[in-house]
Amino acid sequence: MFGLLSQLAHAELESPRPEESAAFFTEVLGLYETERDGGSIYLRAWGDPFHHSLVISEGAQPRIAHVGWRTAGAEALEGAAAAIEATGLGEGWQEPVLGHGRAFRFRSPGGNLHEVFWDADRYVAPEAQRSTLPNRPQRFLPVGVGARQIDHITFVTPKIMDDVAFWRDTLGDRFMEFAVDENDEVVFAEVTSNEQAHDIGLVGVAAAPGGQTHHLAYWLDLPSEVHRAADILRESGNPVEWGPARHGHGENTFLYVREPGGHRIELFSGGYRNYQPDWEPRKWLANSGGVEMFVNNPMPESMFEAFPAGERR
Amino acid sequence: MFGLLSQLAHAELESPRPEESAAFFTEVLGLYETERDGGSIYLRAWGDPFHHSLVISEGAQPRIAHVGWRTAGAEALEGAAAAIEATGLGEGWQEPVLGHGRAFRFRSPGGNLHEVFWDADRYVAPEAQRSTLPNRPQRFLPVGVGARQIDHITFVTPKIMDDVAFWRDTLGDRFMEFAVDENDEVVFAEVTSNEQAHDIGLVGVAAAPGGQTHHLAYWLDLPSEVHRAADILRESGNPVEWGPARHGHGENTFLYVREPGGHRIELFSGGYRNYQPDWEPRKWLANSGGVEMFVNNPMPESMFEAFPAGERR
Amino acid sequence: MFGLLSQLAHAELESPRPEESAAFFTEVLGLYETERDGGSIYLRAWGDPFHHSLVISEGAQPRIAHVGWRTAGAEALEGAAAAIEATGLGEGWQEPVLGHGRAFRFRSPGGNLHEVFWDADRYVAPEAQRSTLPNRPQRFLPVGVGARQIDHITFVTPKIMDDVAFWRDTLGDRFMEFAVDENDEVVFAEVTSNEQAHDIGLVGVAAAPGGQTHHLAYWLDLPSEVHRAADILRESGNPVEWGPARHGHGENTFLYVREPGGHRIELFSGGYRNYQPDWEPRKWLANSGGVEMFVNNPMPESMFEAFPAGERR
Amino acid sequence: MFGLLSQLAHAELESPRPEESAAFFTEVLGLYETERDGGSIYLRAWGDPFHHSLVISEGAQPRIAHVGWRTAGAEALEGAAAAIEATGLGEGWQEPVLGHGRAFRFRSPGGNLHEVFWDADRYVAPEAQRSTLPNRPQRFLPVGVGARQIDHITFVTPKIMDDVAFWRDTLGDRFMEFAVDENDEVVFAEVTSNEQAHDIGLVGVAAAPGGQTHHLAYWLDLPSEVHRAADILRESGNPVEWGPARHGHGENTFLYVREPGGHRIELFSGGYRNYQPDWEPRKWLANSGGVEMFVNNPMPESMFEAFPAGERR
Repeated sequence: MFGLLSQLAHAELESPRPEESAAFFTEVLGLYETERDGGSIYLRAWGDPFHHSLVISEGAQPRIAHVGWRTAGAEALEGAAAAIEATGLGEGWQEPVLGHGRAFRFRSPGGNLHEVFWDADRYVAPEAQRSTLPNRPQRFLPVGVGARQIDHITFVTPKIMDDVAFWRDTLGDRFMEFAVDENDEVVFAEVTSNEQAHDIGLVGVAAAPGGQTHHLAYWLDLPSEVHRAADILRESGNPVEWGPARHGHGENTFLYVREPGGHRIELFSGGYRNYQPDWEPRKWLANSGGVEMFVNNPMPESMFEAFPAGERR
Repeated sequence: MFGLLSQLAHAELESPRPEESAAFFTEVLGLYETERDGGSIYLRAWGDPFHHSLVISEGAQPRIAHVGWRTAGAEALEGAAAAIEATGLGEGWQEPVLGHGRAFRFRSPGGNLHEVFWDADRYVAPEAQRSTLPNRPQRFLPVGVGARQIDHITFVTPKIMDDVAFWRDTLGDRFMEFAVDENDEVVFAEVTSNEQAHDIGLVGVAAAPGGQTHHLAYWLDLPSEVHRAADILRESGNPVEWGPARHGHGENTFLYVREPGGHRIELFSGGYRNYQPDWEPRKWLANSGGVEMFVNNPMPESMFEAFPAGERR
Repeated sequence: MFGLLSQLAHAELESPRPEESAAFFTEVLGLYETERDGGSIYLRAWGDPFHHSLVISEGAQPRIAHVGWRTAGAEALEGAAAAIEATGLGEGWQEPVLGHGRAFRFRSPGGNLHEVFWDADRYVAPEAQRSTLPNRPQRFLPVGVGARQIDHITFVTPKIMDDVAFWRDTLGDRFMEFAVDENDEVVFAEVTSNEQAHDIGLVGVAAAPGGQTHHLAYWLDLPSEVHRAADILRESGNPVEWGPARHGHGENTFLYVREPGGHRIELFSGGYRNYQPDWEPRKWLANSGGVEMFVNNPMPESMFEAFPAGERR
Repeated sequence: MFGLLSQLAHAELESPRPEESAAFFTEVLGLYETERDGGSIYLRAWGDPFHHSLVISEGAQPRIAHVGWRTAGAEALEGAAAAIEATGLGEGWQEPVLGHGRAFRFRSPGGNLHEVFWDADRYVAPEAQRSTLPNRPQRFLPVGVGARQIDHITFVTPKIMDDVAFWRDTLGDRFMEFAVDENDEVVFAEVTSNEQAHDIGLVGVAAAPGGQTHHLAYWLDLPSEVHRAADILRESGNPVEWGPARHGHGENTFLYVREPGGHRIELFSGGYRNYQPDWEPRKWLANSGGVEMFVNNPMPESMFEAFPAGERR
């Protein structure tokens, strides 16, 4: 928590096959359904503290309809709303909805829809799901992959450095790492509100034409669980798109898979813990060894696809 | 496989609460029910190649009713039966039963009931459970702990060195490690038909008065999964009795838990791979630092309990 | 980073055997010596960003002479100094020293000596030690345990809730977890400036009579490396005092060992990531199952010893 | 141990840069030098029980000059020699050499030079290197990767099924897995004397033209250590050629790297434990998803190179 935001709280995923998407998240990744309301399915991982970290709604194409951020406090919410309003990107306040209080909506420079809020409904487990540990929102009795909590989201943007500046200067995130192409143009960037390299990834449109989002990531407790997840995904008929491998940036272990609606999901663990407020963003050369820890595991072409296809706001 | 046996194939567990025992093995440890027959429940772990590795039958007290060993081949079965017969410990041939062919039954010197057989029914997964890997008997889509396969069994015996001699000299196992008390009496010994330190543990009656068996062990792929299992067991209301920790003998990571019928089950992973036919058994001093890798994790008193209580054949 | 502090930056360890202590940290734990100056030895782990995270000085008894905290920024340093001054615990400004700029010194309510500073010298690796990754201060070519970075420190205090209040209200840390005895007296507490359960542990004097500090902890990348470290420590003649096991509070995997000067060092990994500014501290019952994840791994009596023996400021 | 062999005991590696090769094995992989004799450098991993598992000799090109197998006993040595002699592949007895007793030399059908022996000198650690565990040949005080023991070797052969038949029918290995091309020609096969999928890999000459060996593998205790090794290799200037990833056959975690002399070395861990003497070899389709667990980590072209280049016996 280095600024006005405390954490990525939830994302709304539109899927052409919402029931199949929900089944994938619950039966394979091990999330739990909290509630259904207004045609949407509300889910959370076992370690997510709030009512939901994922909302699945029906949509013609796979896309992330909006992303919710919890602020660092009640004052920080007012401060964030005012600061965003001042940039001209604000879309106004929204009344409380299922799971959280009033929220201020806005578009990031690249066009993605977000909301910030402070009041949030904590998940209260029914008796049978209560943990024997007082610090857990729910028992750990995992199914399948057993993802622990929402981690980060990666957007596609035509204005990558505008997005970096927005998150850093308006909301107080840190700008941690970036990659440039042979023309020294930034093609990938990471900003964060926490100790890891990113809770927001930013991919340029050249790398992911047409789309608005690239992937949504869930956290597993151990890198070895990402490898275990790859096995489970293979065996469950959900082939891994890329990985498991390890990013150089952030040092995280990862894999990517498509959920049944078509959107890319990342499973993610490990990585450095960096507490330096004055960290200088680190530069990588995208086409010279790349940003990966293990250079002989090249990214497949399919990773250039973003969502929704062929459309921007 | 260093002698006439190829592997521990199955154990029959008597439980006063067979349905609860079966639920623990399937819902918490992640075994699968193959079949029910004659009042018994047949189970196997996802990686077990045969029809079953565990039979749960109803009984007044928790105990292992018999243990099944697969021989190294058809000739090895005849050889084993003849060799056992010659020791006077044989109890004769038994007709084929559910899961395997004709078997020769015997009592080990300490009094435990065993059978050796060669013909075994391989598990054939139904279409929906087939693996995407040609070398697996079943898909890996784990529930809970997700144990992989049966590993070893530890007996209680008043004649510990007679048992060692029997398994080594009659059946060709290797004698790997042992621990002595202050009088240089052997109180614990390990023999094996494979590359690990043991598929049979032998505990003296002083250490486990009255009983015939001490624990039955299942294998997990990684030591870290034993730690994950400890968490799952706690959260599922099945408290770990000892561990997770690491034995010095064999270098295995372990934990012990009681199944609902009362018998002790070990979850087990890691350990050395030893291929030396002429390995000299290694001696440990049980009361001087002990046989554990991590000396400040003492064995609780409850570990001296064996099954069934207060009775020997 | 939830308040005025960004991170635990260093600790000064007094040792009756400074050369042996330094050899333990470099040859067994895998730290690196940065410099020697004024009779002190400056060390850092491979992932520590600054000039040092540990200073070893000669002293009659093992003790932590002072602890250094880096603030969240230059303004936060002024704010922290003013806020501390207002509590009457300030001891004034100190001129820049080897490794960091001017610092404000103070005693926490329990009597431990600290300093806060902002300007810090970053470690610059010599050519041969430079990493192939732009985000690392140094190559990863580990020796022995290969600890990554300083993690937390646990103090002994007669005024445990005063200390909690000080760190929370004066410096903005979060109060995360605590344990009470049968009289509902707090005997252990954890406060943090980051996403984990603590970077400060607080132990009551009843639990650790006479001393001022209990242990200093270094971070390893994986819980499995704590288990590997236990093996290395045993083999290097530095017996583990307690662990490896897993705390319930924070969910961290740990072990404790004494460095040659006598002070307790913890090796530490894993644990939850908690981003809730309004987290309610969780209460544990110290004598009813305890604060451990695995209940059958009791804390040895030696863990009640604190440093220096029989003395408080 | 399923036949006349108990284990792969050693390999002789010829290197154009023997000192650099030795430094890589000791300083990066963490092997130990036992002795130098006759221009050769004798090395072993910390867990290898015998005098050496690797001999480095000077040679014009990187190649494996010979491979040593320990038999299942003294009689098995005579039996193996007789059986090999009967195939016409024998090259006669060799007098005892440094590290082991008399050996029978032979060429496998594909032309590689081997020897079988029984008497072997066990490594006896000097006092300072003795383990605190009675079952280890040496203390575990690792440097760098810290490889544990020799694991397997992969040959190139124009007669892949002849080699399979030789190891299976003459020496009693099991034939475990194989891959075929679109013409149903076997292009890869695995045979084993132990519980894992292979201690011998066989690659067809189409896949590795000209050479006689493909790689020599060392075992690490955990799959996570293979990932840690990849990081160490990168940082030490020894780029990983392929991996870390996981083979489908055998389920092993792997990486490949070239030692300074140019030969490919594999680091290897995990994998199934299979005890079935009547295991049916499993067939994979090399060009239809391949033999890898994770399909989006394709093998780089460089992996088709074998040693020595452009030459067969």
